[in-house]
Amino acid sequence: MNMAPDTHSKTARRPARRIAVEEGFTLPEIWTAARRVLGGHLGEEPGEAFVFGLTAPAPRSGRAGPPPWLAVLTDLDDRRLADMDASGIDLQLLLLASPGVQIFDAGEARELAMLANDRLASAIARHPTRFAGLAAIPPQDPVFAAAELERAVRTLGLRGAVINSHTGGEYLDGERFEPILDTAERLDVPIYIHPRAPSPAMVAPYLDQGLVGAIWGYAVEVGLHALRLIFSGTLDRHPRLRLVIGHMGEGIPFFLDRIDTHHGYGGGWGHRSRPLQRRPSEYFREHFCITTSGMNWAPALRLAIDTLGIERVLFAADYPFEDTKAAVERISAFALSDSERAAIEADNASRVFRLPAVACPDIPGSRAESQDTATDGRA
Amino acid sequence: MNMAPDTHSKTARRPARRIAVEEGFTLPEIWTAARRVLGGHLGEEPGEAFVFGLTAPAPRSGRAGPPPWLAVLTDLDDRRLADMDASGIDLQLLLLASPGVQIFDAGEARELAMLANDRLASAIARHPTRFAGLAAIPPQDPVFAAAELERAVRTLGLRGAVINSHTGGEYLDGERFEPILDTAERLDVPIYIHPRAPSPAMVAPYLDQGLVGAIWGYAVEVGLHALRLIFSGTLDRHPRLRLVIGHMGEGIPFFLDRIDTHHGYGGGWGHRSRPLQRRPSEYFREHFCITTSGMNWAPALRLAIDTLGIERVLFAADYPFEDTKAAVERISAFALSDSERAAIEADNASRVFRLPAVACPDIPGSRAESQDTATDGRA
Repeated sequence: MNMAPDTHSKTARRPARRIAVEEGFTLPEIWTAARRVLGGHLGEEPGEAFVFGLTAPAPRSGRAGPPPWLAVLTDLDDRRLADMDASGIDLQLLLLASPGVQIFDAGEARELAMLANDRLASAIARHPTRFAGLAAIPPQDPVFAAAELERAVRTLGLRGAVINSHTGGEYLDGERFEPILDTAERLDVPIYIHPRAPSPAMVAPYLDQGLVGAIWGYAVEVGLHALRLIFSGTLDRHPRLRLVIGHMGEGIPFFLDRIDTHHGYGGGWGHRSRPLQRRPSEYFREHFCITTSGMNWAPALRLAIDTLGIERVLFAADYPFEDTKAAVERISAFALSDSERAAIEADNASRVFRLPAVACPDIPGSRAESQDTATDGRA
Repeated sequence: MNMAPDTHSKTARRPARRIAVEEGFTLPEIWTAARRVLGGHLGEEPGEAFVFGLTAPAPRSGRAGPPPWLAVLTDLDDRRLADMDASGIDLQLLLLASPGVQIFDAGEARELAMLANDRLASAIARHPTRFAGLAAIPPQDPVFAAAELERAVRTLGLRGAVINSHTGGEYLDGERFEPILDTAERLDVPIYIHPRAPSPAMVAPYLDQGLVGAIWGYAVEVGLHALRLIFSGTLDRHPRLRLVIGHMGEGIPFFLDRIDTHHGYGGGWGHRSRPLQRRPSEYFREHFCITTSGMNWAPALRLAIDTLGIERVLFAADYPFEDTKAAVERISAFALSDSERAAIEADNASRVFRLPAVACPDIPGSRAESQDTATDGRA
């Protein structure tokens, strides 16, 4: 497939390489297990099937067969590569779709996590220039999760871990999760905190007006999770822990100044929080990177870059849950210098996830081919 | 007091008039009643005393006397006017401090709301060019609340109502609150949805790491409230209802595009919400104005103006909970044309709340005096 550089958008500007870092997949085995665990809560939409967990609203249909989207989410070969080519994505950083293995009991979660990681590593071995991935780990068993993270990184070549926010209502500032954070810190790999529906202790007011999912509840859930890691002092205990959150920082960049102000008020006018070694925004800027998944929208991107710095913002499309072509069109239309564009669309991802920097001349439709001819579009 | 135009900031640009629209007050009687109702939950900080309600953490001190901040919050004369003069505020739109009368039983709430409104009207009568106000109403008794809103507007000259988000865990999309919305719509006055701590059904995960208040929980609470009004179809039933929210829109402007996208996905990939007559962002842009209270921060202000339009953004300082001088310095340093500055700092407020447009030559330290000499600073 000989792909012209700008088929994805007439206004597109093309970096040498485009990496998307929050791209979903699952295994048929995990879908089947989720269907069994979620039971009547599992409808035909992935929002219910894979994200809402046990807090899902009642399903709209009771049909028994696999839903049509399953083929998209489980493909790690031709169909996915064709979609990547069509939308102009050189490399996907793959994450087991939310809620990962976090809805299963610990024993099943351990088995499914290992299966997912092995299967992901195989897909990467088949397509080493097109895929990289993060490990699925079961926080239900923190010691095993830490060991599986180490195996996934050292043996399988995965680039960190994805954790789909709360596990049974608990957040990573809980003491029992320390082995996971210790190991991520020691291996110097990031943990990507991906959304799921708000935790059981706060989900109720989001359910009845349809606000539980990506439309609002996901950001509420992960925004809280990230701030808990700062305000609990967890990052004081883990000064080298690296974290990634999607959806343009789940709202935190917009509030970064207000958060600092009110932490500065300390026990005075307004709230009580523990003393920290630094301002909250310093933890956020130094420990977190954010991705543009589902939020490739100019006003929010502008704020994120201005607030965090270009080196902290990574492109993501959130395939197949969002429209990847639209995401590429939007990031391409956003005014950036060549070096800024390279940072957001590839170089930051390569640095944060230590991705191989090679081009991919042997892959049909690869950017190594279109790179030269794209020069005009990048002026 | 002869106030030089730029004493509040060397870089300040001075509009002809500066109005702040989310400025707090309370009555000693309401503080006493809150102390009785909240009991051991009432500490020395207003964050606990007036905002956290029954979900407050344990108080830090058990002392019995009135706290020092009470004098600031209850003053509606010289002390407040001196603070306004010192920080460059011509007119405060006053709101009974959160959680208003919403923590009391209906009978007491009715009495205290009327008392607060009468007392507020008296203060405005004493200082008609410096104060305007919104009515406190008890949503616990919606029929009374609607009648009190009408009395406050028609008889007392108040400019709308303030409602401190949830009442007993219920939001304004609940059917029983229809009389309030009907009346606000009929009178064509706005309802200001002001924060309080997240509702009981979702507050738990915000309590243990000190995130319940202005630092994060308030935005979570009001952001949800505003979206519930859109997604419940409430605004389809009330096409002329006007709403105001503070803190730069409580995060909604940052997510406006994502909200539209996922509503567009409808019952498909992700969530289920009811059909609406328009896109969610259209309801937000047409029904809501936002204020800069506690968020006079350039990146967020830029996003809000770009996203909503200059006519939807109103200056607020959130006196005395925030640093009013700092708020004025920040808005003054923000690059705006003279007409944009006039819109944000005064004209939008005058339009939204139908404030008197008169200057105030008889008030010592008034801007009518400094207006002329400020011309240089506005170049």
